[in-house]
Amino acid sequence: MALIVQKYGGTSLGSIERIKAVAERVKHARDRGDSLVVVVSAMAGETNRLLGLAGALAEQPEPRETDVLAATGEQLSSALLAIRLQVLGCPAVSLLGYQVPIATDSNHGRARIMSANPARVLKTLAEGRVAVVAGYQGVDDYGDVTTLGRGASDLTAVALAAALKADGCEIYTDVDGVYTADPGVCAQARRLARISYDEMLEMAGLGAKVLQLRSVELARRYNVPLVVKSSFTEDSEGTWVGHEDRSMEDVLVSGITLDQNQSKLTIAGVHDRPGLAARIFGPIAASGVVVDMIIQNASADGRTDVTFTVARGDLHRALEVLRGVAAEIGAAGVRSEEQVAKVSVVGVGMRTHAGVAAKMFEVLAAERVNIEMISTSEIKISVVVRAKYGELATRVLHDAFVTGGGVEGAAPEGGQG
Amino acid sequence: MALIVQKYGGTSLGSIERIKAVAERVKHARDRGDSLVVVVSAMAGETNRLLGLAGALAEQPEPRETDVLAATGEQLSSALLAIRLQVLGCPAVSLLGYQVPIATDSNHGRARIMSANPARVLKTLAEGRVAVVAGYQGVDDYGDVTTLGRGASDLTAVALAAALKADGCEIYTDVDGVYTADPGVCAQARRLARISYDEMLEMAGLGAKVLQLRSVELARRYNVPLVVKSSFTEDSEGTWVGHEDRSMEDVLVSGITLDQNQSKLTIAGVHDRPGLAARIFGPIAASGVVVDMIIQNASADGRTDVTFTVARGDLHRALEVLRGVAAEIGAAGVRSEEQVAKVSVVGVGMRTHAGVAAKMFEVLAAERVNIEMISTSEIKISVVVRAKYGELATRVLHDAFVTGGGVEGAAPEGGQG
Repeated sequence: MALIVQKYGGTSLGSIERIKAVAERVKHARDRGDSLVVVVSAMAGETNRLLGLAGALAEQPEPRETDVLAATGEQLSSALLAIRLQVLGCPAVSLLGYQVPIATDSNHGRARIMSANPARVLKTLAEGRVAVVAGYQGVDDYGDVTTLGRGASDLTAVALAAALKADGCEIYTDVDGVYTADPGVCAQARRLARISYDEMLEMAGLGAKVLQLRSVELARRYNVPLVVKSSFTEDSEGTWVGHEDRSMEDVLVSGITLDQNQSKLTIAGVHDRPGLAARIFGPIAASGVVVDMIIQNASADGRTDVTFTVARGDLHRALEVLRGVAAEIGAAGVRSEEQVAKVSVVGVGMRTHAGVAAKMFEVLAAERVNIEMISTSEIKISVVVRAKYGELATRVLHDAFVTGGGVEGAAPEGGQG
Repeated sequence: MALIVQKYGGTSLGSIERIKAVAERVKHARDRGDSLVVVVSAMAGETNRLLGLAGALAEQPEPRETDVLAATGEQLSSALLAIRLQVLGCPAVSLLGYQVPIATDSNHGRARIMSANPARVLKTLAEGRVAVVAGYQGVDDYGDVTTLGRGASDLTAVALAAALKADGCEIYTDVDGVYTADPGVCAQARRLARISYDEMLEMAGLGAKVLQLRSVELARRYNVPLVVKSSFTEDSEGTWVGHEDRSMEDVLVSGITLDQNQSKLTIAGVHDRPGLAARIFGPIAASGVVVDMIIQNASADGRTDVTFTVARGDLHRALEVLRGVAAEIGAAGVRSEEQVAKVSVVGVGMRTHAGVAAKMFEVLAAERVNIEMISTSEIKISVVVRAKYGELATRVLHDAFVTGGGVEGAAPEGGQG
């Protein structure tokens, strides 16, 4: 008898009919003899509806109260699923954040989990019941409702799986796993059977929306293997996410990700002297804008250009700050490009194989796609290209690395990346 | 500086615009220097929407989970009102049932309040904040969410007012007070400036929907004076509800109530012997049906008819039980009338004035309204009439006792009732 944590997303619970289908699936798993903890998101659209009400009352609703409001979405889902499970003869009890408890700090809207207490969940399971836990919510030291950030029901599931030492953590969503590229962009994309935490972190961070970033970090830290599956089909094994093993290294590139939600800014003609980066990026960070890639052009006559990317939603704020900085340090000017695309190849095989970057640049050059910025990590190479080339770049890189099978004559270890 | 508990009903909070208006009213009261505790109901229609979702998943949703679900309605209202108050520069904190805490038993769906802990509310007030408390909900010994029954946000308000030793408890609703009769039935009905708890209890129990019955009982027990007011106008003083005083005795009849939601059942031709009532009403009570009025006809040849009334929603169940009883005890038969009307005159003045019943029967006889059943208490006389006469009876009794001014030559103390 295994202890399994299942998590169902908002689309999987988006209607009465879908809640009924999820209940059948849970009952089916329990009939196999497993002990089940089910973590639920709010019904699709519910969180937006709730935040819309708050938005109609205040431009910036107070975060503590916004959490009280938003938490009702998961509370509702958990009660509805428990009600349906009981109809199917499957004893079930809903548990809210304060009841588990999922203890968090008081950082409303993006609270961090301090601990997930397994006692009440274990008692519920020992009584032969399914524990239906409201995801996304916790409770702080004051007994106040907190929420963990958008998409954080994944995080609740992983935290519980770790605390309960669960045998498995299954993330049910509207796609049947992690793909080598977005199938909407690249028709040849295929589901990955296995992927490492590190790759998944790069993929999640780069805009693949299947798993929430922090939940993958947590799963890696506590050795919780995840399975990402579709709640709409029984036909797929989904994608297994876990620690890297030797077999993974044989796959050079696991996937190609495309992030269209990026903007680029340049501060031009600044004196290149020590402390320059701090003078530019200090104020940007202080304004709460997260900078992604940064390049600094080779300095000519003592002046240089610095270019960086931010999430598009932050462009306006970043521009405002940057103009202030430019005036202060006597820069020649500020430029921006609202929409650029970041295309990345990700794979743990890169650690031991060389030549990926070279091949990537060749492939893009052959299509006359100009590379505007480059950044690399051990298992990822990202390039920024003009927005209109984003999808094309994704497709040709997928053809070259995934469908086509990688780098000819790639040398294990060493060589030029 | 006074400590005031205000309670706003679902209609008062039924839209974004109305929530804004309530926030203005709360702020206005606070600007006068009062400490404010505001108890909120769910937005109008929200509780029905939530129960509808549960009803789509189960014929009889499990009560514990139904409470988890239904409690989200008040949680939402409390957060929204707190958000709006903050926009108006009025510091406010929402508090849920488990946070106050409002401790209850575990009788889900109609839990009884064991205690309302004033500590956290007082701390909130001491910090200069408005405490916005989610009504209708509590928490049991297991830390589970409970609800107190429909309309029970009034109860939350009164329980808090008692625990906090508040200077006042204002119940805001969509009417501007308690009326001498339903203005929809009787155009001449007028607002009462003052009414005693006992009268209010009779009025509430008899179908006047302004205040929830249990909240009036609680207010009487803990000496919490209530004011019932409209949240839609500033023009009315509302109705004050408190302990009886001498001035109230001068008013013979405070109001006429009409309950159209009654059914009548008769079990005919039963042997009139000791224990008969128990054999009939034991099984009825065991089935959860509450019996209101009972009459037993004078026995002829050792057989008798027993007639009683129940709420219309219980008729089907009561009939089923009664047919079983009839077969068992050899009764001649069972009859029922689905819709009858109960009309009552209520007033503490009746305790010391005679002749009310006689005048009531005269007035109805003059209109040829046949009285089918009669029941009396110290401060109330009720009659059951055919449904079609309910409104007519209300109007003529209102003319005779309220507009007309009562019983001519009524003798204080003694005399015939």
